[in-house]
Amino acid sequence: MDKVRRKSESVNKPIISMKTKYIINILTASALLAGSYGCKPDNSGKSGGSELAGDAAQKVYVAPGKHDEFYNIVSGGFNGQLSVVGLPSGRVLRIIPVFSQFAENGWGYSEETKPMLNTSHGFVPWDDSHHVALSTTNGEHDGKWAFINGNNTPRIARISLSTFRTDEIIEIPNSGGNHSSPFITANSEYAVAGTRFSVPPDANADVSISSFKQNFKGYISFVSIDKTTGHMAIKFQLKTPGVSFDLSRAGKGKSDGWFFFSCYNTEQANSLLEVNASQKDKDFILAVNWKKAEQYLAQGKGKKEPAKYAHNVYDEKTHSATSTILNEVMTLDPKECPDMLYFIPCPKSPHGCDVDPTGSFIVGSGKLAAVIPVFSFDKIQKAIAAKTFDGSFDGIPVLKYEAVLHGEVKKPGLGPLHTEFDGQGNAITSFFVSSELVKWNLQTLEVLDRVPTYYSVGHLSIPGGPTSKPHGKYVIAYNKITKDRYLPTGPELTQSAQLYDISGEKMKLLLDFPTIGEPHYAEAIPASLVEKNSRKIFKLEENFHPYVAKGEKEAKVVRKGNEVHVYMTAIRSHFTPDNIEGVRMGDDVYFHVTNLEQDWDVPHGFAVRGANNAEILIMPGETCTLKWKPTKVGVTPMYCTDFCSALHQEMQGYVRVSPAGSKIPLSWGTGKNPTAEAEKKVAKL
Amino acid sequence: MDKVRRKSESVNKPIISMKTKYIINILTASALLAGSYGCKPDNSGKSGGSELAGDAAQKVYVAPGKHDEFYNIVSGGFNGQLSVVGLPSGRVLRIIPVFSQFAENGWGYSEETKPMLNTSHGFVPWDDSHHVALSTTNGEHDGKWAFINGNNTPRIARISLSTFRTDEIIEIPNSGGNHSSPFITANSEYAVAGTRFSVPPDANADVSISSFKQNFKGYISFVSIDKTTGHMAIKFQLKTPGVSFDLSRAGKGKSDGWFFFSCYNTEQANSLLEVNASQKDKDFILAVNWKKAEQYLAQGKGKKEPAKYAHNVYDEKTHSATSTILNEVMTLDPKECPDMLYFIPCPKSPHGCDVDPTGSFIVGSGKLAAVIPVFSFDKIQKAIAAKTFDGSFDGIPVLKYEAVLHGEVKKPGLGPLHTEFDGQGNAITSFFVSSELVKWNLQTLEVLDRVPTYYSVGHLSIPGGPTSKPHGKYVIAYNKITKDRYLPTGPELTQSAQLYDISGEKMKLLLDFPTIGEPHYAEAIPASLVEKNSRKIFKLEENFHPYVAKGEKEAKVVRKGNEVHVYMTAIRSHFTPDNIEGVRMGDDVYFHVTNLEQDWDVPHGFAVRGANNAEILIMPGETCTLKWKPTKVGVTPMYCTDFCSALHQEMQGYVRVSPAGSKIPLSWGTGKNPTAEAEKKVAKL
Repeated sequence: MDKVRRKSESVNKPIISMKTKYIINILTASALLAGSYGCKPDNSGKSGGSELAGDAAQKVYVAPGKHDEFYNIVSGGFNGQLSVVGLPSGRVLRIIPVFSQFAENGWGYSEETKPMLNTSHGFVPWDDSHHVALSTTNGEHDGKWAFINGNNTPRIARISLSTFRTDEIIEIPNSGGNHSSPFITANSEYAVAGTRFSVPPDANADVSISSFKQNFKGYISFVSIDKTTGHMAIKFQLKTPGVSFDLSRAGKGKSDGWFFFSCYNTEQANSLLEVNASQKDKDFILAVNWKKAEQYLAQGKGKKEPAKYAHNVYDEKTHSATSTILNEVMTLDPKECPDMLYFIPCPKSPHGCDVDPTGSFIVGSGKLAAVIPVFSFDKIQKAIAAKTFDGSFDGIPVLKYEAVLHGEVKKPGLGPLHTEFDGQGNAITSFFVSSELVKWNLQTLEVLDRVPTYYSVGHLSIPGGPTSKPHGKYVIAYNKITKDRYLPTGPELTQSAQLYDISGEKMKLLLDFPTIGEPHYAEAIPASLVEKNSRKIFKLEENFHPYVAKGEKEAKVVRKGNEVHVYMTAIRSHFTPDNIEGVRMGDDVYFHVTNLEQDWDVPHGFAVRGANNAEILIMPGETCTLKWKPTKVGVTPMYCTDFCSALHQEMQGYVRVSPAGSKIPLSWGTGKNPTAEAEKKVAKL
Repeated sequence: MDKVRRKSESVNKPIISMKTKYIINILTASALLAGSYGCKPDNSGKSGGSELAGDAAQKVYVAPGKHDEFYNIVSGGFNGQLSVVGLPSGRVLRIIPVFSQFAENGWGYSEETKPMLNTSHGFVPWDDSHHVALSTTNGEHDGKWAFINGNNTPRIARISLSTFRTDEIIEIPNSGGNHSSPFITANSEYAVAGTRFSVPPDANADVSISSFKQNFKGYISFVSIDKTTGHMAIKFQLKTPGVSFDLSRAGKGKSDGWFFFSCYNTEQANSLLEVNASQKDKDFILAVNWKKAEQYLAQGKGKKEPAKYAHNVYDEKTHSATSTILNEVMTLDPKECPDMLYFIPCPKSPHGCDVDPTGSFIVGSGKLAAVIPVFSFDKIQKAIAAKTFDGSFDGIPVLKYEAVLHGEVKKPGLGPLHTEFDGQGNAITSFFVSSELVKWNLQTLEVLDRVPTYYSVGHLSIPGGPTSKPHGKYVIAYNKITKDRYLPTGPELTQSAQLYDISGEKMKLLLDFPTIGEPHYAEAIPASLVEKNSRKIFKLEENFHPYVAKGEKEAKVVRKGNEVHVYMTAIRSHFTPDNIEGVRMGDDVYFHVTNLEQDWDVPHGFAVRGANNAEILIMPGETCTLKWKPTKVGVTPMYCTDFCSALHQEMQGYVRVSPAGSKIPLSWGTGKNPTAEAEKKVAKL
């Protein structure tokens, strides 16, 4: 009850507004409705549901040289990155930069990667990533790609699970925030993007904020994914009422062809939402028949509307990204496309909206609700056929709650957020307010088990939990607070997840493991589906970078006006050239460095003193470019930044920068007095 | 022998130059000299020196809710960050941004932190951090500060172990690369900075690279540290011969008042150093009598020289940093200061230069050497008194090798890099080429134990290992290669360290743990010395930020020409104001967000759609500023990025941006139609 306790502490403080008291009332009300659970977490890590330390230690220990069993692809939340974690050890194996600049390897700094962060707003160096979606075929993990949303400046990114790099980013127009994204269909036909904050359409944007009800719209974008290349395109957008879309899942099995989105702020408030968007006892889940939408599109019901957005693609052959600005998007207006959208009433401010492995059940998790409603896809179809409506919202029919309800999980806990499935007919739901995981049966809806989390769990993840074929074995809780769980590190604390064994009847806590950034959501996939495809090097003969030097003989320095292009090679343990003279103040120097190594795990790094830039980290066979505008006259060192051999420390060179207009000719080399000849010339001048 | 093996594979490839063969000859020669060790690492993690998996699991497992025993403060190498790791679990508790922009919390993006990355070259968003130094009193850890070097654009940073933030960065002029840094004296009087790449002095810089021997100089800077505030200043610089300084340690105990620096490239080569700087069989250790230097300074022997460098300080009261450019530095010329510097011959290309806990012994680790020389401080003093010289180098006397040698460790391994001490009279040395740790006795110099590392270990760390009072118990190997040790993650692989138990006679491998960035070097300190001082929140009443709003009543929006300053407050779960109108295209909008919370672990984040900027992450009681230049007309959402309560998702607002010259008046608020009044006015216009 951590957050609640802290809230009530705060109430005595003058700086707390009346509104906070209001929330406490909401939550207390829910608490009363929901009864109490005796699940107040203590801090021993030994309380109900935790494994004996000895057994737990054995279960999470991965001996030196042994490999983890699962890849856990974890969103970094507000760091805009992905991290790759091994399970059960909880060890962070890699950080993959996606939406945020990453000085460590030059992502968003090198000439090749800067275009990846281009948007209709220009270069955006950061985003807030929430939801990971791994590609599926027939509803099962295929190990090809990971997708993740940019929440702040609406975008979807695609990451290769072969190179573990971000290969593509597409911006989403007409969106105020891309939260309800990028949930994907059973065969990865589409990733969706539902607006979190409704906004006026880009075309008519300068309206008063208080005209929300008239002018603000929600948009849902359907982003198509090419089966073989993975390339993304916005196929169409649905113009929906001005509500906030929170989370979503695609149907599967019998419900394939449908999408379900949780909606909050159906009050359509534009200020102080913690109060004004918590008025109604029921908000909605929006059911979207996307196969029908495709039919309408085929019938020419789509309308092209102006919309400016960026599409950025990284090409493995040229080792370079390009950014294209697109100017229109196809939209469908529900008013002209009947029987495509339906609202399902859902108690209160739903967050999670999850579909079970069979596709029969849709689970709504209302964060201010006292029950978990489970809806039946069959009943939804019947209600639609029979038009069992409960009126309409902004022209979209609202299905009768009782008519589509499979049943409610009673007294589940406080603040249900997100549900996944163990493949054994059970669901596990996370509870933010009462800080616990609760396991319940999908058919009987009875609660089977509950374990505490430390503290305030948001999303949870079961390997394969959102797919048609969960892998089970573990559930991971991604927590929002850690407070006293780790050694303190000042006001900013460790972010953390917790690993539970779910192979038995009772869930057992095995491990607290820290994460990189906010562990917002994650998916886990068996190592066997991914490791076999992992790329080791880039082949030199397949390097089509326009400035590649495939051998030291191809190394050179070329001046084009005030641009100086250095075609440089790196190999243990020297650069060619490593001495350069004839650069002048005012020049833009481009170091195009090709790593000639063709062995695994032999990157070279490159940096030059005083550059207003990051380093570049160059993988075997790759070419990367560091742009440098000299700021001082003099001899400037450059060196390899990635410890590459016993003589790495000797892998260095010098660039001489002379004053603007200097007569020093361009000269370069590696070996004995590389620039001596040029200097003789100078002497003669 | 990993690197060597891979090298020889490479030899068959045409892209390999003759020089590589040369290196193989060097290493083979050393191998022959040094004999063989039968220590080729296998990949089982079960080979010689590894603990039984069961026992190891128990030894490294930290049960949920329990705390680690040591803080391991780990350099991120080429990521320019520090990470805080718990030992024995190997869990990464925090990443502390130092020299590199960090989009996750706005470091280097927010108005308050941008000045921290200012240099004489302007804003530099990255650096390459190698060596951590924890502050000491009487040669023992005092838990106050961590220092770390910026290698590429020469700088030293000071990190508070109370807030775990970077509080100060000072640039080092006349340096080509700040590698040999920031090693500190027994009472943290000084941190030193020795040039890695000799360069022409800043004053006379535009000279030909091939004039190295005449014009290039090495500089050693002595940066003083204020006992109470920790504030740094460059007290003086020593103008030394043009060699490369690699590593260093201060004397302690009897040798307090001295510093010892390893030197390579005494050949003074300026190209292809892997060959040209590996000619001599012996390079040097430079012994510096810094107490004597202080006397010369007091006698007025110092000379002020022009030198441009930045000094950046973060102020906890204003939550803001300032950057000052300084223009001169005090230098001492050894030619005018006799008996201050002495060279000690050291075999071949020394890397490590380490002083034992008593201060009696100086250990040189020549990465191309076949022995480990151990020098005696007493013998050094005798040799100086008796002038037992072996000629001089660039005017500095060279002490006779045999006269100052305590003895040599024979057949220690291949490629010795770095040595630390267990406090039991033993030393442990890392070997890059033969991938192993070797334990030997300081008095008898006999090898006691050796264990394999996976692979190619660089630095190692024993808790307190560089201090007068090692804490012992563990040694950590910081490795340069991991290849097949973890699940593969594409061409770029996991960076890793290994934890060994040294409490017994034999070293035992316990754990492989991944690290953030390159684990270049680290220190470990008992939790008890740090956790008690860890800061939990910033007190609102102590917040002196010029744009703070200490309560919602102080929230406001002020226009100054085309600058719009938003004095904003954040508290669970709303901003004040959360609706703003009257912003125009062309404005620079400054959101000064104060987090009103005064509880631990309740940060709020703030972001605005489409900003060409990162988010800000605001700790309780703190004020941070996000600058936003609107790029589009329209209603733009803003929201809290750090999951703060059950109603976090509702913590949002809107800013209306109208065209340049619009008549929409500035208006703001939170609650019911905050801007309605203003709109009535507009209606009248």
